[in-house]
Amino acid sequence: MLLKPLEDIEKTGRTPHKPIIAITIGDVAGIGPEIVCKALLDRRIYAICRPVVIGDRRVIEREIVRNELNLSIESVSSPEEARFKPGTMALIDLANAEGHDLEMGKVSSLCGRAAYEYIAKSVELALSSKVSAVATAPINKLSLKAADISYTGHTEIFAALTRTDDPITMFEIPGEMRVFFLSRHVSLLKACELIKKKRVFEYIRKCSRLLKAIGCQESGPLGVAALNPHCGEGGLFGTEELDEIIPAIEEAKKLGIAVEGPIGADSIFALARKGVFSAVLSMYHDQGHIATKTLSFEGTVSVTLGMPFLRTSVDHGTAFDIAGTGTASPVSMVEAIKLAALYSRDIHPTNPNYIY
Amino acid sequence: MLLKPLEDIEKTGRTPHKPIIAITIGDVAGIGPEIVCKALLDRRIYAICRPVVIGDRRVIEREIVRNELNLSIESVSSPEEARFKPGTMALIDLANAEGHDLEMGKVSSLCGRAAYEYIAKSVELALSSKVSAVATAPINKLSLKAADISYTGHTEIFAALTRTDDPITMFEIPGEMRVFFLSRHVSLLKACELIKKKRVFEYIRKCSRLLKAIGCQESGPLGVAALNPHCGEGGLFGTEELDEIIPAIEEAKKLGIAVEGPIGADSIFALARKGVFSAVLSMYHDQGHIATKTLSFEGTVSVTLGMPFLRTSVDHGTAFDIAGTGTASPVSMVEAIKLAALYSRDIHPTNPNYIY
Repeated sequence: MLLKPLEDIEKTGRTPHKPIIAITIGDVAGIGPEIVCKALLDRRIYAICRPVVIGDRRVIEREIVRNELNLSIESVSSPEEARFKPGTMALIDLANAEGHDLEMGKVSSLCGRAAYEYIAKSVELALSSKVSAVATAPINKLSLKAADISYTGHTEIFAALTRTDDPITMFEIPGEMRVFFLSRHVSLLKACELIKKKRVFEYIRKCSRLLKAIGCQESGPLGVAALNPHCGEGGLFGTEELDEIIPAIEEAKKLGIAVEGPIGADSIFALARKGVFSAVLSMYHDQGHIATKTLSFEGTVSVTLGMPFLRTSVDHGTAFDIAGTGTASPVSMVEAIKLAALYSRDIHPTNPNYIY
Repeated sequence: MLLKPLEDIEKTGRTPHKPIIAITIGDVAGIGPEIVCKALLDRRIYAICRPVVIGDRRVIEREIVRNELNLSIESVSSPEEARFKPGTMALIDLANAEGHDLEMGKVSSLCGRAAYEYIAKSVELALSSKVSAVATAPINKLSLKAADISYTGHTEIFAALTRTDDPITMFEIPGEMRVFFLSRHVSLLKACELIKKKRVFEYIRKCSRLLKAIGCQESGPLGVAALNPHCGEGGLFGTEELDEIIPAIEEAKKLGIAVEGPIGADSIFALARKGVFSAVLSMYHDQGHIATKTLSFEGTVSVTLGMPFLRTSVDHGTAFDIAGTGTASPVSMVEAIKLAALYSRDIHPTNPNYIY
């Protein structure tokens, strides 16, 4: 079981059916604070969770004024104090981001440091079961670096702070598909080399277990994508299916794992859209990315699994080019918060069978 | 100029603004005849072209009865004789498919031979400028083989009969995107090996020329996809972008070709959907297939370019499993006929600037 019972929260008695979700505002020189503020005006958020924002009060105030948002702020030192009232943002104010040199759309050590501190606070709250899950706004790698923070991104920070060896990224377009990745940030040639029976089998087992942990295993088997066109056409266009992928699937099936494949990449995602699979295990970074980002560039949510708690994220960057212009869309942020809430549903004992 | 003036047709004086499109019914044991009949009931077809079907009258009659279609047949020996009246199918009846042993959903030499003859007739009509373009319903490779016809598919037959060395396949989802492929039916490893400056450059030049031939060059530059995740992140995840793709693009730009890239595969198709590019040159089979087939499995049309005339095709098979059940969707066939018509528009001199 990935998600811990929120005993502390249950004891408070406040809107007990809804998980508390920590939302980090990301790099304050980017669009993070703006999309978090706009997202909290979406009433669907409060219908399914109790959001608490981790950020800087002056930054949030600036966004409210700049975007003329009908949103007030309730500063709290811990989620237990919050009233979670729609129209009022419950905010844990770290008061760490409003420096004299803060400029929108610019790399700065101040913003990098602040962004890191929001994440660290969210991890602290989640590990102490004060929040069920975390949804993150984007951070900037260069600002992190400027602050001498040696992680390359969100996932690495969460992995380190939660002491997780191998967090697993899942992409989800709500209502359309979920996608896992056998490899990510390696060349396509290297990705081809990584197609080995052992690795494929281990990912099938791991992804299957994670789908169960978030309550999605009922929605179909895990679909495994092929590497080569037309599944290699019986060995004519590549033999990885015959030599590595099929044996891995067969071994997983022997263990009773619900898994199907390999299925040609030109069909498997279309089948996933029809609801055939609980998720697709893609064989390389772009295979899964093309499917999700082509279908819904803004609606793709990244979910980090395999940690002691669940984290969701928008799948876009800080958008420094439009930061401060008021034109950023909160669509991804809303979806990320919603998924964090939906996958935290099992923490409430009266609703264990909720099917997303 | 790909498409020839239809002098013969213009002389007849009948609905002269619309190109004549030959439609082959494909393998008659599959869903081809059904979707052709259903497609011809779509009035949008007659609004933009004059369709003439190449098939077998008894097969078409069978489909009309089985599907209770409000469609009659006008047998003609040549397109010049046809009235092209909505609700009446102009049919060139080769009377070659109704044998005693014809069974729906089965491989047979009779059907393979008949399917080949429809294609051969369409090529004859197109090469003699009696039709502007050809739209094809699906054929079955095994039936072709049973008939001792040694081609593996449609494209190979068209290439041979038109003596075209290297026909180019373009996928199109009307209103969404067009995609070319640097390689197709080879393993992913082999596709990686084919990423060479010379090949990329030649494809850029060829695709650019073909886009111009079908009147699409105005809608934006050709976008070139990257091979590796994040375009290789400056050489960190692969060097094909730096060593091969970028130099090819630079060389093409020097010749004045409107081309942009390389752009990460997780972004380029989303950008194409926004209308940024006239087309995307994908680096391997699945890259382009995942984007198109995930987005619209049924709405993807295959366009064969580089021949003396243009050919479009549904991008699905004979669907033997549902042949004869009346449940086949004509959506792809309608789109294929529409594209054949739209890209043949330039044959009419009064409408040279039509932008699709």
